[in-house]
Amino acid sequence: MDFETLETDSLKIGVEMYKWASDLFPLNRSITGQGNRETLQYLKKLLPDLKINNFKSGDDVFDWTIPDEWRIEEGYIDDEYGNRIIDFKTNNLHILGYSEPVDTWLTLEELNNYLYSLPEQPNAIPYATSYYKRRWGFCITHKQRLSLKDIKYHVVIKSNFFKGQLDYGELIIQGQLKDEILLSTYICHPSMGNNELSGIVVTSALAQLISSMKSTRYSYRILFIPETIGSIAYLSCNWQYLKNYTKAGFVITCVGDNNNYSFLPSRTGDTYADKIANYALNNYVKEFKEYSFLERGSDERQFCSPLIDLPIVSIMRSKYATYPEYHTSLDNLNFICKEGLLGSYNIYKRIILLLENNITYKPLIFCEPQLGKRGLYNITSNQNADSLVNIVAYIDGRLDLIDLCNKIKIDFFDCLNIIQILLEHKLILKENGS
Amino acid sequence: MDFETLETDSLKIGVEMYKWASDLFPLNRSITGQGNRETLQYLKKLLPDLKINNFKSGDDVFDWTIPDEWRIEEGYIDDEYGNRIIDFKTNNLHILGYSEPVDTWLTLEELNNYLYSLPEQPNAIPYATSYYKRRWGFCITHKQRLSLKDIKYHVVIKSNFFKGQLDYGELIIQGQLKDEILLSTYICHPSMGNNELSGIVVTSALAQLISSMKSTRYSYRILFIPETIGSIAYLSCNWQYLKNYTKAGFVITCVGDNNNYSFLPSRTGDTYADKIANYALNNYVKEFKEYSFLERGSDERQFCSPLIDLPIVSIMRSKYATYPEYHTSLDNLNFICKEGLLGSYNIYKRIILLLENNITYKPLIFCEPQLGKRGLYNITSNQNADSLVNIVAYIDGRLDLIDLCNKIKIDFFDCLNIIQILLEHKLILKENGS
Amino acid sequence: MDFETLETDSLKIGVEMYKWASDLFPLNRSITGQGNRETLQYLKKLLPDLKINNFKSGDDVFDWTIPDEWRIEEGYIDDEYGNRIIDFKTNNLHILGYSEPVDTWLTLEELNNYLYSLPEQPNAIPYATSYYKRRWGFCITHKQRLSLKDIKYHVVIKSNFFKGQLDYGELIIQGQLKDEILLSTYICHPSMGNNELSGIVVTSALAQLISSMKSTRYSYRILFIPETIGSIAYLSCNWQYLKNYTKAGFVITCVGDNNNYSFLPSRTGDTYADKIANYALNNYVKEFKEYSFLERGSDERQFCSPLIDLPIVSIMRSKYATYPEYHTSLDNLNFICKEGLLGSYNIYKRIILLLENNITYKPLIFCEPQLGKRGLYNITSNQNADSLVNIVAYIDGRLDLIDLCNKIKIDFFDCLNIIQILLEHKLILKENGS
Repeated sequence: MDFETLETDSLKIGVEMYKWASDLFPLNRSITGQGNRETLQYLKKLLPDLKINNFKSGDDVFDWTIPDEWRIEEGYIDDEYGNRIIDFKTNNLHILGYSEPVDTWLTLEELNNYLYSLPEQPNAIPYATSYYKRRWGFCITHKQRLSLKDIKYHVVIKSNFFKGQLDYGELIIQGQLKDEILLSTYICHPSMGNNELSGIVVTSALAQLISSMKSTRYSYRILFIPETIGSIAYLSCNWQYLKNYTKAGFVITCVGDNNNYSFLPSRTGDTYADKIANYALNNYVKEFKEYSFLERGSDERQFCSPLIDLPIVSIMRSKYATYPEYHTSLDNLNFICKEGLLGSYNIYKRIILLLENNITYKPLIFCEPQLGKRGLYNITSNQNADSLVNIVAYIDGRLDLIDLCNKIKIDFFDCLNIIQILLEHKLILKENGS
Repeated sequence: MDFETLETDSLKIGVEMYKWASDLFPLNRSITGQGNRETLQYLKKLLPDLKINNFKSGDDVFDWTIPDEWRIEEGYIDDEYGNRIIDFKTNNLHILGYSEPVDTWLTLEELNNYLYSLPEQPNAIPYATSYYKRRWGFCITHKQRLSLKDIKYHVVIKSNFFKGQLDYGELIIQGQLKDEILLSTYICHPSMGNNELSGIVVTSALAQLISSMKSTRYSYRILFIPETIGSIAYLSCNWQYLKNYTKAGFVITCVGDNNNYSFLPSRTGDTYADKIANYALNNYVKEFKEYSFLERGSDERQFCSPLIDLPIVSIMRSKYATYPEYHTSLDNLNFICKEGLLGSYNIYKRIILLLENNITYKPLIFCEPQLGKRGLYNITSNQNADSLVNIVAYIDGRLDLIDLCNKIKIDFFDCLNIIQILLEHKLILKENGS
Repeated sequence: MDFETLETDSLKIGVEMYKWASDLFPLNRSITGQGNRETLQYLKKLLPDLKINNFKSGDDVFDWTIPDEWRIEEGYIDDEYGNRIIDFKTNNLHILGYSEPVDTWLTLEELNNYLYSLPEQPNAIPYATSYYKRRWGFCITHKQRLSLKDIKYHVVIKSNFFKGQLDYGELIIQGQLKDEILLSTYICHPSMGNNELSGIVVTSALAQLISSMKSTRYSYRILFIPETIGSIAYLSCNWQYLKNYTKAGFVITCVGDNNNYSFLPSRTGDTYADKIANYALNNYVKEFKEYSFLERGSDERQFCSPLIDLPIVSIMRSKYATYPEYHTSLDNLNFICKEGLLGSYNIYKRIILLLENNITYKPLIFCEPQLGKRGLYNITSNQNADSLVNIVAYIDGRLDLIDLCNKIKIDFFDCLNIIQILLEHKLILKENGS
């Protein structure tokens, strides 16, 4: 392992991720549709091995059914003077997601039943959808809403529903083990920065990183799926394999701003993913807020559901549903930044390196080894010598390296350096199967 | 289950219990004798299915032997002027329980060896007995004792011992399961309110409640027995069945005053009875004091003894041996009250409802169910909708409802309402055997 | 068991131990050599059953090899005027342990490369050795070093190395069980009080105590071995037997001064030795400081090494490497005292009595026994009666006496008195095999 690259300090990759987010921002993603296919095509350029698959409208997936595909051409409101006061073209949040078609004249009073706005955030366009109940509506700033005059309005949404498909991307990177690490992010929010694109771009950058590693111990399964219906559909086909082979998994979302980290544990709170995430958060970020699984809100709702029960957690920056810009037009490209994306990338990189290297070793020598005859008393500094002696004193074939580091109070990656030396001197051996 | 009657607010049942206590107060109960039979006959009127059984004097019961029956006709002290200064007829605490017969003249100095009084409570007649060592004695207020003149006294106790029986009552209410809940109270203290009659009347009211339920999940075994020798005798015949089938049990005593609650855990502190009692106390009473099993003092001494080892606890108001009126004539009908009895009745009612409904459920649907298509998003309020979603997210076939409620921080009976809805919609199923 | 001698208050045995330490102080112990054989011969007079054995130079013991034996006849430095400024005869710490022979003239500058002194402790001669790398050197006070003039010095060490042996003492005291208690102390430091002789003399006194007991439950294995190489060599021959039969063990070192106690737990911290030591420290000493196994430093490094993994702890007074006199000429006979040695002896005596008596008992009677008919209600005091009732209420065939005493909050040896009574009355029985 290349220790110089434990963390990527250069902003290069942060700049790159931000660029991808900017490219993907305008696409009108939803749980189905053209915007999603364009998004996946874009990602395939970044990740050539990405497989793009789909489920068909009408497919039964557990308790749910894949809905019809939604296509929208245009959507606008003109006032009676012909002024276009709202236009889907200017911001795709303006249309309630999955709006049915409409072409009618309404009074302001009538129109008000179809408008969504946020009185407490007068400058934000809210994000709203109605996937499973046919409705139509417009989302506008409250400021604009208050300015509407009591005249007539021409309301037009040119949309249609048809038997189409729900698209998703899946990238499998084969490792030495069949055991897998799952990274999952979602592609169903149009034009939102932290609560959508940050997850997509950090996951893509991590996928590139993992692909670039010569050989990984674990296999990696990386998913770009619409939230909820996408993960349910995916699990309906793959849950048994995932239950057998998923060692740890992460829902990567809300990783774009540069505020403190957040942690959403798994339902039980004691899975291997929780262990790894806790080690990383306690050692490699300044501060983080731990939430309860009762505050969950993304695809861990499916991955951790009782009959599926995968070991899945989320490390985030500002967690969904906790910041005022969430699910509004203010969660845009200004809300995220390259430094924020880079920090999230780095903590997940640490997690991958922890996963790859958190192995159990067993001693090969009874009693203390004679370090002097091997020149190991002063490897680089006295502190390292102490650490080496302590590592040898505790390695027992049962503690994994994280347990060991917690016991003897040294850093995991410092420990790993010493483990290399002990392996070279045949003082320890990898436990079979770990 | 009828949720409107979770707690009985009306004082009606408190008034009734207090009336029963008043009726039973004058009877001269002991570990054997006529007073006990009269007590049991009275209870049989309240509980027609009560079985009245007995053990015979001389029967060996584990390490003990059923003692001879004690009959007392009269007992008094006259002074040399013929004034009757103490008379069993006025208060049956005046005679040391199980006093042997005596008819003699004594000086004050001689008499003092046979008098029991409490210097620190000069107005209280103490309660004392000598079941297993032949003695006689009189219990009097310390005030009266100090007033005795140095003259001669004629002391008379007309009592006798004979091969008789030790009587007890047993009510078995058959449920769907062979598994049982044990309620036990004692009938051996003459004329005392909190530390005797409160237990008898609350247990009787609970027995009426359980009998009135259409069908219970558990079977209930309800005992009215003399303390110590009664429970030992009962266990000597029934311990193996009780070990096999007792799921939880409660020694009901000292439940008559209106002070804060007390809790005496089982010996190990981790039985199912402890779990249920802790949930009830932590959620349904304002305050309670937890004692250690080292402070035990009633029939849990036998029920929890190591080779018997039943899951038995006690929820009390003012615990025996902690209040100054305990074991004196001041623990009388004024010490208890209908409000105190009602509160105790209600907490035990909660316990019965918890026991009956604390079941394990398993999910029937993989991933989250689609609540919208079932109209379950707004069942009554948003809070209930959240609770429903959380219940579904945690029900796993392993957590019982109490564990579940503790995890997701909702009330057991609120949870139960939602469980009904989930059952109706076939989203969950009772775990087999629970 | 003789309860009057729970602790030996008389200083007699403290005086005796101090005398032994004084006798052994001048001998030039090292990991091999004549000083060790003289030490062992002295101990054999105290412990006639002591077996004196050895390993041969060149023997392979795990990762190590028994070194050549070191013999030193004399060692001194004369200045150019013929003044003998340093002489091994005056203090055997003056010579770096295992110094190779030398006979040469050096300038002060050259000499300085071979001098060891402690600037921060100018009056102390440091203790230093070089067992596995050939060197020579003199240890002197820093005060003397600063006084050396820039003249020439004649440096002479008459030492030699040869195929000899490493000597050690082993005393096995057979008990009723094959299970063993290990007591180990070291014999390799010349002329040091706390960090060497205190361990030897306290261990010897304990060995005399154990030998004097009519019959012990456990067998005792008592070792006098050079530190590190001695314990490694001993384990290389005996580790499998020790793993099978060692129930608890103690490295007895630094037990000579009269300061507060120190505790070094085992590697895992949860062995039976930890349990016993914790009970003794928490109940029978005023104060103690608990160290981490990371601060280990004696033969627990070998005994607790992962593949050996014996249940070994250390109770000390001032722990090695924590007091300024450690490993210098100031850790001498003035640093230790008879009161300090006696206190250490007494705490280890307590430990032996705890080990011998910490048994599991099971009840023989269902429910509470009838104490009255056995006259057990007032055995000596009311407190004892309460304790007896509580012991009977908790003895269940699973809790050992330490667990029981912790539960019911009475002292182990008070409990033991009551256990005798319960055994005599056939109310309890020793658990088979305990």
